[in-house]
Amino acid sequence: MNAHEQFIAAHAHVDEAAIQPLPNSKKIYVTGSRPDIRVPMREISQTPTADEPNPPIYVYDCSGPYTDPAVKIDIRAGLPALRAGWIAERQDTEALPGLSSDYGRSREADAELAGLRFDLKRKPLRAKPGMNVTQMHYARRGIITPEMEYIAIRENQRLDLLPEVIRRQHRGESFGAAIPKEITPEFVRSEVARGRAIIPANINHPEAEPMIIGRNFLTKINCNIGNSPIVSSIQEEVDKMTWSIRWGGDTVMDLSTGKNIHETREWIVRNSPVPIGTVPIYQALEKVDGKAEDLTWEIFRDTLIEQAEQGVDYFTIHAGVLLRYIPLTAGRMTGIVSRGGSILAKWCLAHHKENFLYTHFEDICEIMKAYDVGFSLGDGLRPGSLYDANDEAQLGELKTLGELTDVAWKHDVQVMIEGPGHVPMHMIKENMDLQLKWCKEAPFYTLGPLTTDIAPGYDHITSAIGAAMIGWYGTAMLCYVTPKEHLGLPDKNDVKDGIMAYKIAAHAADLAKGHPGAQARDNALSKARFEFRWEDQFNLGLDPDKAREFHDETLPQHAAKQAHFCSMCGPHFCSMKISQDVREYAASHHLSEQAALEEGMKEKAVEFVKAGAEIYRKG
Amino acid sequence: MNAHEQFIAAHAHVDEAAIQPLPNSKKIYVTGSRPDIRVPMREISQTPTADEPNPPIYVYDCSGPYTDPAVKIDIRAGLPALRAGWIAERQDTEALPGLSSDYGRSREADAELAGLRFDLKRKPLRAKPGMNVTQMHYARRGIITPEMEYIAIRENQRLDLLPEVIRRQHRGESFGAAIPKEITPEFVRSEVARGRAIIPANINHPEAEPMIIGRNFLTKINCNIGNSPIVSSIQEEVDKMTWSIRWGGDTVMDLSTGKNIHETREWIVRNSPVPIGTVPIYQALEKVDGKAEDLTWEIFRDTLIEQAEQGVDYFTIHAGVLLRYIPLTAGRMTGIVSRGGSILAKWCLAHHKENFLYTHFEDICEIMKAYDVGFSLGDGLRPGSLYDANDEAQLGELKTLGELTDVAWKHDVQVMIEGPGHVPMHMIKENMDLQLKWCKEAPFYTLGPLTTDIAPGYDHITSAIGAAMIGWYGTAMLCYVTPKEHLGLPDKNDVKDGIMAYKIAAHAADLAKGHPGAQARDNALSKARFEFRWEDQFNLGLDPDKAREFHDETLPQHAAKQAHFCSMCGPHFCSMKISQDVREYAASHHLSEQAALEEGMKEKAVEFVKAGAEIYRKG
Repeated sequence: MNAHEQFIAAHAHVDEAAIQPLPNSKKIYVTGSRPDIRVPMREISQTPTADEPNPPIYVYDCSGPYTDPAVKIDIRAGLPALRAGWIAERQDTEALPGLSSDYGRSREADAELAGLRFDLKRKPLRAKPGMNVTQMHYARRGIITPEMEYIAIRENQRLDLLPEVIRRQHRGESFGAAIPKEITPEFVRSEVARGRAIIPANINHPEAEPMIIGRNFLTKINCNIGNSPIVSSIQEEVDKMTWSIRWGGDTVMDLSTGKNIHETREWIVRNSPVPIGTVPIYQALEKVDGKAEDLTWEIFRDTLIEQAEQGVDYFTIHAGVLLRYIPLTAGRMTGIVSRGGSILAKWCLAHHKENFLYTHFEDICEIMKAYDVGFSLGDGLRPGSLYDANDEAQLGELKTLGELTDVAWKHDVQVMIEGPGHVPMHMIKENMDLQLKWCKEAPFYTLGPLTTDIAPGYDHITSAIGAAMIGWYGTAMLCYVTPKEHLGLPDKNDVKDGIMAYKIAAHAADLAKGHPGAQARDNALSKARFEFRWEDQFNLGLDPDKAREFHDETLPQHAAKQAHFCSMCGPHFCSMKISQDVREYAASHHLSEQAALEEGMKEKAVEFVKAGAEIYRKG
Repeated sequence: MNAHEQFIAAHAHVDEAAIQPLPNSKKIYVTGSRPDIRVPMREISQTPTADEPNPPIYVYDCSGPYTDPAVKIDIRAGLPALRAGWIAERQDTEALPGLSSDYGRSREADAELAGLRFDLKRKPLRAKPGMNVTQMHYARRGIITPEMEYIAIRENQRLDLLPEVIRRQHRGESFGAAIPKEITPEFVRSEVARGRAIIPANINHPEAEPMIIGRNFLTKINCNIGNSPIVSSIQEEVDKMTWSIRWGGDTVMDLSTGKNIHETREWIVRNSPVPIGTVPIYQALEKVDGKAEDLTWEIFRDTLIEQAEQGVDYFTIHAGVLLRYIPLTAGRMTGIVSRGGSILAKWCLAHHKENFLYTHFEDICEIMKAYDVGFSLGDGLRPGSLYDANDEAQLGELKTLGELTDVAWKHDVQVMIEGPGHVPMHMIKENMDLQLKWCKEAPFYTLGPLTTDIAPGYDHITSAIGAAMIGWYGTAMLCYVTPKEHLGLPDKNDVKDGIMAYKIAAHAADLAKGHPGAQARDNALSKARFEFRWEDQFNLGLDPDKAREFHDETLPQHAAKQAHFCSMCGPHFCSMKISQDVREYAASHHLSEQAALEEGMKEKAVEFVKAGAEIYRKG
């Protein structure tokens, strides 16, 4: 029995935990202007308050078909190619006779790997000669693609169904974000055309549900998965992907550096409803047995094509690690901490030549636009400690990334910019402002930043603080950090902990930016809390399982979930009760809440209370 | 066998886990101007880098005698009364013949309770008639107390021993904080006199090690413990206290609302080296069987005296919950969520009278100054949801707390102000600014704030984000939130998780404010990380146990702790290696790092690299 058979056997039934719908939740689809635009959302039902129903809450849903009981999941077949028709009808792509990459073909021809290989039936697509198939290219020609319409529906989260009571006017600084009350397909198009947002959507990843990354949209989070030379299993990485999207990962980066990188990625892409990003230099390095100095443009180029034809949606490209910046890292506390950055620095030093990603940048653009792969311009010189934050090496590279953005945009190739790292709170805004200025508002995509270095084991928290802030200031996507950061490879639990911290940061940022409707879920949950609707409180939260588990640790009985108290205060000390009495007073005296409020403001409190006191004597 | 015997039996040996010194750490004492001023610090030793030693790092230590192997811990005897001599020599206190509180005496006389009672040998102290024994009173008369000198030494953290390389100039906004390069006893005095900082130091809690709460000092954190009517055990609460201070709790609030509140508190205070805070209205309510309307000033007054004579260092007093503010809560999403606030609101409504804590505020001041109990003016109307943040009820109360601050200061009674709660990021600064203005810079002491409502089970994280930010803006003490918030009573694990999130928030705030030397620990840890000193990296962190455990999950072998890689990237991909090569190049060519850096900046990168390439070919 070979490795593949083991793998296939393990997948005969997909992990049940990852495909159950979340509690009291139902997958719904909102149909767009044509029947094949079906945008998934998660509908969370609520129980009524006495006789009055509470409306369902609709939340953005990254989990794809996995949480839809109507879809039969078969990891071996992959997900349905929902975008295939849209791509085909544009008539600007052609199916290739086979893989273009030498390496891809050699893997395909290797009989030893047969057991490990995903069995993809269709042929890879590429732009027809002279064509440009990027969403940015369409956007700039004024075309609203089905992808754009899909995104507009998705970003609005059915605000039309929300009662006015759970909206509220934004007050405070939103740091230049200009989020319209309603996201229209035209708004999506204009943001993509302007370069302020990207839609990672490789024509060879038709399984992906369109999504957008830009600061005038919901803040997104990325989850890193991938094997390492120490720990490797295709099965485990696919499971991490399905686990990531279940809890809210908007994109997934496969950072594998271990065995069978090519085959691992194929399994992930075929089964992923979210865009997949990679750092192609990792695989290129594996191809030269880990010797950075042996890397060549030709090997790298072949790797880009190999991955583009598998369907990777964005590539981290460390083209800003220039020769002249490398000495600037000599006085640092922690030197170069980006793996990609260090590989390129090593190559530059070994050859005393300029970074080949920089010198071949236009060649890379040519490849990107033939498949619509987006750039994630890597911050190879990001700080690895507070001491190194916002230093000359980091900022020099950032400026170069800004110049490269112009080059990519010249080719209508989509670009986002990667950012740090380790930055204390008071230096985060400076970093964001420089990025917006130098990179002309191309979406910023940051790792954290971590706001202190002293908490290994808790870097999901040190970085969630920085992530929430930089998200508010304008970062479009937050790359999660797990509790294992700096210590080891995350397992499934760590992945979930990292996601939770980052869903919190992203949502806190959306609230602070004043994203319309972002507060709807907070308000619904708070109302449930106030009304002792325990089940609704659990179900509306980011992690219903954990909330229920914590509650039940002290009060496991079913009755406790109807109770008007919990184990924190017990029945005597419950603060919520009194507020309800005040409200009941208003109702029983036919005062609207607003009127009751004004009575109080007119200093008529004494009379108000006098009458109110009756309630307590009767009660 | 009664409950007491069970309790004593359980304490025959104190919990070993709570009294071990932290790894590679040693308790040291820095002596002040007199031999009885002995300020504890934790010295963390480091391993050398090749032949070069790395200096020990000194960190603020809240754990008291528990982590000093030279001290024999006996829970039944309590801690040594280190401040007794200082208090006595001021000659402004007198030992009372017995407890002044009726309730205290009745508990003392209750034979049934004998088994539960802590056996305190000394008599309670009170100010001599006409005397005022507050630290603020001394400060305003220009007296530098031993407590103030102790604090000055403690806050400096032996910065004199730190090499210059690990300091760095602050750049960015520090929001009005004015932290001197060196904290002197005179600076401590002036801040206390000005009301901008408080020293919670009840004359009946001589076991406490002096500490200060103010925005020009290190940001502090408070841990809430206490039983509830659902879960109750003296043993467990004492254990939570020793556990809290081990991990960095600066003060502990005993929020017990369950059985034997009086006796539970006595055990906690006698064994606590950190200040203890309470909310006396909780116990007063228990005395009237949970009926808020039966509360009277006399019962409350007796409770204050009872607790003041036990040694409680600060009282939460909800004197700002005024009658006219109560109707303002009627239109809220979550009404009144402060337990104390709801009790007072209920009393006000039931009697249609003004809050008796407000009408008797000067009487309360008289009690406070006779024992030096500090006010923590409670925010009974804090928002319990984002929807209610910074609303009229909350801000009305805050303004009243500002007025009460003036009244307390007239009596030289120390004051801090409690704050929210649930506040989205963009409204935090407004809240802080209003507090500074209306409360004249009296220290702000906030619960979080939570920056979103949607993550029950993770509110240590939703709130650490807000806590870090408000700490940066000027909050002096952060009240922790555990993962169980809103769901249940925290156990020891939850307490630790809450503390870690808040130590991170407090430290992030210190860094952002530019506290001198705050970055020393970050820099030391980052240097250890860069040099693959794994053990030092664990030991310098907030939680060495967790860091080691995470690392060892994938690489448990001893050799892996010397290895120049970890399970994240493996040996090929380790980014730190290349940086070290750059540095070695500079050293081997007798270039200082600065010179190497300048070479690079002069665009001489090519020559630099040419020579550098040699290193790789040899390597």
